[in-house]
Amino acid sequence: MSTGFAEMSVQECRDRIAGGGVGRIAMCAADGPQIFPVNFVLVDDAIVFRTAPYTRLATLVDGRSVVFEVDDLDTERRSGWSVEVRGTASVVQDGDEVMRLRRTGPEPWATGQRRMFVRVPLGTVTGRHVGV
Amino acid sequence: MSTGFAEMSVQECRDRIAGGGVGRIAMCAADGPQIFPVNFVLVDDAIVFRTAPYTRLATLVDGRSVVFEVDDLDTERRSGWSVEVRGTASVVQDGDEVMRLRRTGPEPWATGQRRMFVRVPLGTVTGRHVGV
Repeated sequence: MSTGFAEMSVQECRDRIAGGGVGRIAMCAADGPQIFPVNFVLVDDAIVFRTAPYTRLATLVDGRSVVFEVDDLDTERRSGWSVEVRGTASVVQDGDEVMRLRRTGPEPWATGQRRMFVRVPLGTVTGRHVGV
Repeated sequence: MSTGFAEMSVQECRDRIAGGGVGRIAMCAADGPQIFPVNFVLVDDAIVFRTAPYTRLATLVDGRSVVFEVDDLDTERRSGWSVEVRGTASVVQDGDEVMRLRRTGPEPWATGQRRMFVRVPLGTVTGRHVGV
């Protein structure tokens, strides 16, 4: 009997997330699990998103082990896919790199100073189809 | 200057998640943060979703502090909302309750034995509009 899931290859996972979009990043803090939706792009084999300094996300994320999840799940058809990226997040500190990401990186949605770039390298990448 | 975020009232958060749909549940395990997309409904002031016994989610979730997140974020319009529910997850053990949830609870997407129901009570509920 089908279990309803089919693992995706790493290449297929990369293809799914190459276009960027909305994903969620989860991490563990002293007061428990945290989850943040972010608008991301894929740049040089890393998930890159923006946040504002001094937000809770900015305060927690640098150097932390995270899992980043992207999915496209259709409630009508009860099917879709989900990709997970596990790695250590880091705030981009290099000035040249920040300048480059301002041109090529994700556009900020919210107004205000979302000038901090965070990178999660494509460490462990897994994905699966659901409802197959 | 606008920060680009506006907090939602608890009632507004409840209204947003009342219809169910796809959310993501995050928790901390011995090997780091975990995130799982699930198809949920709101039943008796709790998030309820199904999973199969012996999956990683089923093994981890019972009695664990979790954060459940639902959002609707539009990359074209760069706006949307996000709601978070924090609470302790529990596997529904009561036989009558399981029977009731089989009738009223979320339909399983995947084929196979997703016969376990998990409940996350609406402990702390927060939400915000993004890109306003």
